[in-house]
Formats: sequence, structure tokens, C-alpha cells
Amino acid sequence: MKHVISAVCVRCGAEHEAVPNVTTCPKCGGILDIKYDYSYIKKQLTKEQLTQRKEYSMWRYREFLPVAEEGNYPKLRVGWSPLYKADRLAEKIGIKTLYIKDDGINPTASMKDRASAMAVAKAYEAGADTIACSSTGNAASSLAGNAAAAGYKTFIFVPERAPKGKVSQLMIFGATVISVQGTYEDTFRLSAEAIDRWGWYNRNAAINPYLMEGKKTVSLEIAEQLDFQMPDYVAISVGDGCSIAGVWKGLKDLYEAGFIDRLPKLISVQASGCYPINRAARTNTPLEPMEENTIADSIAVGVPRNPDKAISAILESNGVTVEVSDEEILAAMRLLGRTCGVFGEPAGVTGTAGVKKAVELGLIPKDSSVVSIVTGNGLKDVNNAIKAAGEPIHIPPQMDLLLEAFAKSGGPQ
Amino acid sequence: MKHVISAVCVRCGAEHEAVPNVTTCPKCGGILDIKYDYSYIKKQLTKEQLTQRKEYSMWRYREFLPVAEEGNYPKLRVGWSPLYKADRLAEKIGIKTLYIKDDGINPTASMKDRASAMAVAKAYEAGADTIACSSTGNAASSLAGNAAAAGYKTFIFVPERAPKGKVSQLMIFGATVISVQGTYEDTFRLSAEAIDRWGWYNRNAAINPYLMEGKKTVSLEIAEQLDFQMPDYVAISVGDGCSIAGVWKGLKDLYEAGFIDRLPKLISVQASGCYPINRAARTNTPLEPMEENTIADSIAVGVPRNPDKAISAILESNGVTVEVSDEEILAAMRLLGRTCGVFGEPAGVTGTAGVKKAVELGLIPKDSSVVSIVTGNGLKDVNNAIKAAGEPIHIPPQMDLLLEAFAKSGGPQ
Repeated sequence: MKHVISAVCVRCGAEHEAVPNVTTCPKCGGILDIKYDYSYIKKQLTKEQLTQRKEYSMWRYREFLPVAEEGNYPKLRVGWSPLYKADRLAEKIGIKTLYIKDDGINPTASMKDRASAMAVAKAYEAGADTIACSSTGNAASSLAGNAAAAGYKTFIFVPERAPKGKVSQLMIFGATVISVQGTYEDTFRLSAEAIDRWGWYNRNAAINPYLMEGKKTVSLEIAEQLDFQMPDYVAISVGDGCSIAGVWKGLKDLYEAGFIDRLPKLISVQASGCYPINRAARTNTPLEPMEENTIADSIAVGVPRNPDKAISAILESNGVTVEVSDEEILAAMRLLGRTCGVFGEPAGVTGTAGVKKAVELGLIPKDSSVVSIVTGNGLKDVNNAIKAAGEPIHIPPQMDLLLEAFAKSGGPQ
Repeated sequence: MKHVISAVCVRCGAEHEAVPNVTTCPKCGGILDIKYDYSYIKKQLTKEQLTQRKEYSMWRYREFLPVAEEGNYPKLRVGWSPLYKADRLAEKIGIKTLYIKDDGINPTASMKDRASAMAVAKAYEAGADTIACSSTGNAASSLAGNAAAAGYKTFIFVPERAPKGKVSQLMIFGATVISVQGTYEDTFRLSAEAIDRWGWYNRNAAINPYLMEGKKTVSLEIAEQLDFQMPDYVAISVGDGCSIAGVWKGLKDLYEAGFIDRLPKLISVQASGCYPINRAARTNTPLEPMEENTIADSIAVGVPRNPDKAISAILESNGVTVEVSDEEILAAMRLLGRTCGVFGEPAGVTGTAGVKKAVELGLIPKDSSVVSIVTGNGLKDVNNAIKAAGEPIHIPPQMDLLLEAFAKSGGPQ
């Protein structure tokens, strides 16, 4: 892989060889970042060549990814999610130009598929036959699905509070699921011990630097779908910090390779019940843990695993931080559904809720252009959809009663 | 629209003008079928031109669709779902070649999006601003989503037994949902009266002949994705009969236009608790209603609305009919998840369960090639996924207990 130089520690700066199973910095324990040779990449791929490709998945960007050119790519079709111009939503929010990137249409219905597909590709390079992680959410289901499609075994550790529906997804994909009677911390520790003992490939986002490289493909797609005319802002919900860091990495890659000539600013959106990354970025203070008090479970992360890269990304981009309440998240679910036909889970629509809030607070100018990434499908969390959705009209099957109900609700007569 | 000749009654053969809001035959009440001028289509589009297109959605086939060339296509990106070569599943089933077409990745997570997108396109041509239907399932959610994205109002009539989760999807998409305290028949009648009264555009699959034209795009895609080398069989689950009829229409279109040189046979799969279409096709007797006794709710249709076209399709293709039990459906959910990373709802995987059964029963030769369409995403029905999935390993966070559990379950040591 001539285009990959090394894996650099974001904390101490030490450079390490980017072997397939590289984890955190052996010197200081910091998280690593994959470093590329952009002048080499430039020679390998032009914008024109890229746009002629017929591979419509995240692997169309292989020159920007830490995989061999003729790699054994996983089987599920991850990526190339639609980017919708959302004029009616833009009008409602009061912003000039808005695009919605619906990443909930990925194979296991979240943006995490991009990271998990990368994990599977690297597990192949590492010669592993088994991949493991501890998680209760989209990371787990995307790993289980992508690994199953490629023929890998998975061991997934979940705390016993994990919702049955999510566990059923894992079981359907044939993961060996260990439900740990304890806290998430207990679960993580047991998983770490097991990974160590059996030498499984480690898919934990704060440990494995390749996962972010998968996630960054969302930015590469946004750029190509906009014909490389970048928006003023890219908004995304933030939990453990890996996704926003991935978004920024993708944007910087494109800039370094000369594919785009300006970098958007990031809008980092967290729940007002849990915003440790935003607080640290805004006040320029070290990260302090917070309580996890929000319905948006995928971003309810009081002790984020990747704050360094996330905070750097927000600051480097000269970005905006904004928090939204659970009510604003539920309202965004309705808004996206009603104006765009896009059904997101609470954490999935939090970015869009943040765009609305940022306009209201005057944090971004009304004549801005914004891309808002919806990170997960609403079918993953039907209970909260019910909370957001409201009640239908209940009547016996009689036209006179329908007319009466319509009269009350402002329907047709 | 020079390529559309008329709307022909499948019962009495009368030809009618294919206006955008055409419904059933005014002469006999039979369902209509859109008739094309294939020699005109051939002149407009070659295989080579088609494969160069960059529009990766169902609208890439516009020459084969009853829409104006420069039509106002709906906004959601429907279609161009992945076709996976499923070697490990083929081996488990004992068949030479198997492909899985995962239509559950559509915007509202089912194949019905193809029909609803077409309904929205035709509503536009009809000058309507409101679309209505009665349904509890995927037809309703796909209509609500596709209509919302395009800015149309929807009125959707559901019987009060409709599951809350599905109703919440409709409400999120902003449909006016009328929950009718009565049977499905009561609900349908009230919807018909309302559609009549207010002149809404009618999206009921047994009434509106255009919906099948949307569904047929799944076959056009399968053909193109296989480089127009057709398989021996195409398998699909059958409920009201519209989907299998659509699949057959698409195949015949391609054959008539010279894009493919042979027609696959259909494998029509129903639940053993409800198979009125298969029974009628197999015994060549008029359709008789049946009880609706299966977990696969989307195909639990005792009185199918489109039996004529479905039965013709099965017979014309010299097809195979097969029924599967609920246990076989749940087993197919696990099989697809574990070998392909594809998570289907019960009705979604029924086609694949049928392929397995057909091999077991010797209804199709083991050296056949088969495409099996998965029609809907498993996240739509988490309760049945839990039934199918099995239980995880439950332990306290201790390595010795993990080892003990693995020893029992045949895990690593």
C-alpha cells in the first residue's frame, strides 16, 4: 500500500507501521490516525476518473482508503447513500440551502456500516477469522451483518440492559452474543480480556484506527454528489466522537488531494442531556464525563472514547457546537419525515435538529448552505418514533363520523 | 407517451386510454394492464445506452415505464437495490447458483416503494395533490414516505388492529391516518367512499394498474445486474399477487424488447397457512378464499386483490408453486442473516424459504440458477425476529464463567 505512510499517534506524535491489526499507541496509549501520501494519491486518481466509476459503494474511493487496490472487499453494498436537496425543510428551518444525506439506508441501517465494512476488510488482511467488539448499538449490528456476509465469525459483548430488538438483530446475523450481567464498563473489560486471550480482530472504535477511515467515505460521497462544490457547513450528531472525526478526515483528504478547494465548517450536535465533547470544545477545557440523559441512545455517551480527534476536528474546522433537547430531537424526526420522507432514529436526526437550533440561535448565517447527515434509520427505535409521531384519528367506519372528525381537525369537507 | 398504447382489461380484453387516473375496466370491473409499443421502445433505448446511465434508481428504466420522458420523478431514491451472489447460502440449500436481491434497503424498507413512487409520479400527471389508500403495511408506509418527499398530502385508512409501530411510521411521514374501528373490509369501504367524495388519487394495488409497472423495475434491475444472462428461476413471496405479476411483467418487457433471450420460470411462494393463489394456479381452479394463518403478515392475504394477473404469470412462465410453514420462514430469516448479512421480515424471506423447500421437494433441479427477492426489511417486524433469533449467552462478567459457557456451547477455550 504505497499510499499509506504510517499510523500516527494523535497524542504524542509517534509514528507506527500501519499493520492491519494496529491498535493504540504503544508509547502513550493514544489513538492513532492513518497518514497518507497525497501526492501519490493524486497521481493514482483524478476527479474525472472517479466520476466515471461504476462501483457505487464506499469502495469506489479505494485510493483514499487503507486497503490494497485489489483488496478483498466485504460483500454487503455499503455507502453511496442518497443526498437529497431538501428545499421544503430548508424553508421551514429558515436556511438558504439544505441537503440531507440519508445514511440510514445502509445494509444494517446505519452509518456504522462504513466502519464495520472497513473492519472486515482489515480483518481479512490481518488473516483473522473472527472479529469481536463490545457495544449495544449500531456498531454491533453493523459488525454482525458485514462479518456474516463475508463469512467471519463474531463475538459481541453486550450489557444485559441491551434492548431485545437489537440483540435479535445480532442473533439473526449469527453473532455469538454474550449478555453480561453488569455495567457497560464490566462488559467492555470482559470483551478486552477475551479479545486478548483468543486473538480476535478488535472492532472497537476508540482502539482500531481504521474504523474512522471507513466512516470518512460519507464525506467523499457528499463531495462527489455535490460535484465537489462544498457547502458552508456539514452537520452531524456526536456521541463517542468517531463519526465527526471521520467526516473531518474525509474532507481534509479531499482538500489535500486537490479534489475540493475549500473546507466546510463542522456543526457538532449533541443532546442537551449529554454533551461532554461540545463542552470541552467550546470552553477549550479538558473533557469531563457527563450523565447520559437523552432518548438518543446512540449518542448518549457520557465518557466518549474518541474525544481527542473529535475536538480537534471541531476546532480545526472553526466549527459550531450546539445542543438540542429531546423535544427538539422528536420534532426533527417529524420534520424530516414530513418534508423529506426520511425516517431517522433519534440520534440519526439530531444533526438536523442542531441545524434548526443553530439558525434560531444565530450561530450560522441564514444564507448558508448545509449538509446534514442522518446517521441511522428510525425503524431501529420504534418506541421513540411512536413518541414523536402523534395519534391517528379513531372512528367507526361511517362517513358522517369521518366528516365530523375532519371538521374538528381541519380536514376536508 | 408514444411508447404506451393503452390499458387493456385482463378479463374482457377491452382497451382503454391509459390516462393517469385510470382505474378498473369500466365494462367488466376487471383489472387493467398497461400495453407498450416494444418496437418503439427498442428504437429509443439499447442495452448499451442503458448500462451507461448514471441514474441509479428505478427511473433509469424510464423508456419501459408509463411516464413521460421528462417526467417529474419523485424525490426518494427508490430501486437499484443490491443483488448479492450468495454462494454459502446456495451450498446450504443445495442449489448450484443463488442470488439474493435485497429490496429491503429501499427508502421505506420494502419493495412497495417501487409501486408508491410510481403512484406519486402518476398523481403528478393526474394533477392531484392528495393520494389515498387503505392498508396496514408496506404499501401504506411507502406511500406516506414517497408522497411526503414529493410534497403530496396522503390519507391512509387502517383497521384499528394495525400495529402501533407501522402507524407511527405513517404519522412520522405526516399522513392523515384514519384508524377505523372495524374489519379490513369496513376500512376499505370507507376509504373507497372517501376517495370518491374528495377525488383523491387512488393508490390501491388492485385498482390502479400503474403500481405493478413500478414493481416490475425489480426485474429490469435483476437482468441488468446479471448482464442480461437470465437465471432459470426467480423466486418471490406472494400475498395479493401484485408483486409476482410485476416481476413477470418486467421479464416479459425485456424479452419483447429483445434485451433478454429467454424467460426465467417463476417460483411462487406462499405460507402453508394461506395459499389461495398457489392452490388456484396448481389445480387450475377458480380462486377460493382461505384463512390467514401465518406470521408473515405482509402476505397473509386470504382474499387476494390481484389473483388474475398473478395466476397468469405463474402459468405463463411454466412456474413452480410451493408453500412454507412459519418455522421454515423463521429458519430462512436465520439462514439469510447468517450467510448473507441480509435481515428480512418474515414475508420478505418467504421466497428464499420457498427455494429451499422447492429443492428439498425436487420441484427444481439442483443445478439450477435462482434469483430470490427479499421484499422487506426485518426491522419492520422485530417481534418475529426475536422469535427467529434465539437467545444469547447470559453470564456475570467473569472469564471463568465465560469459559464454562463456551465449553457448554462448543465455543473456544
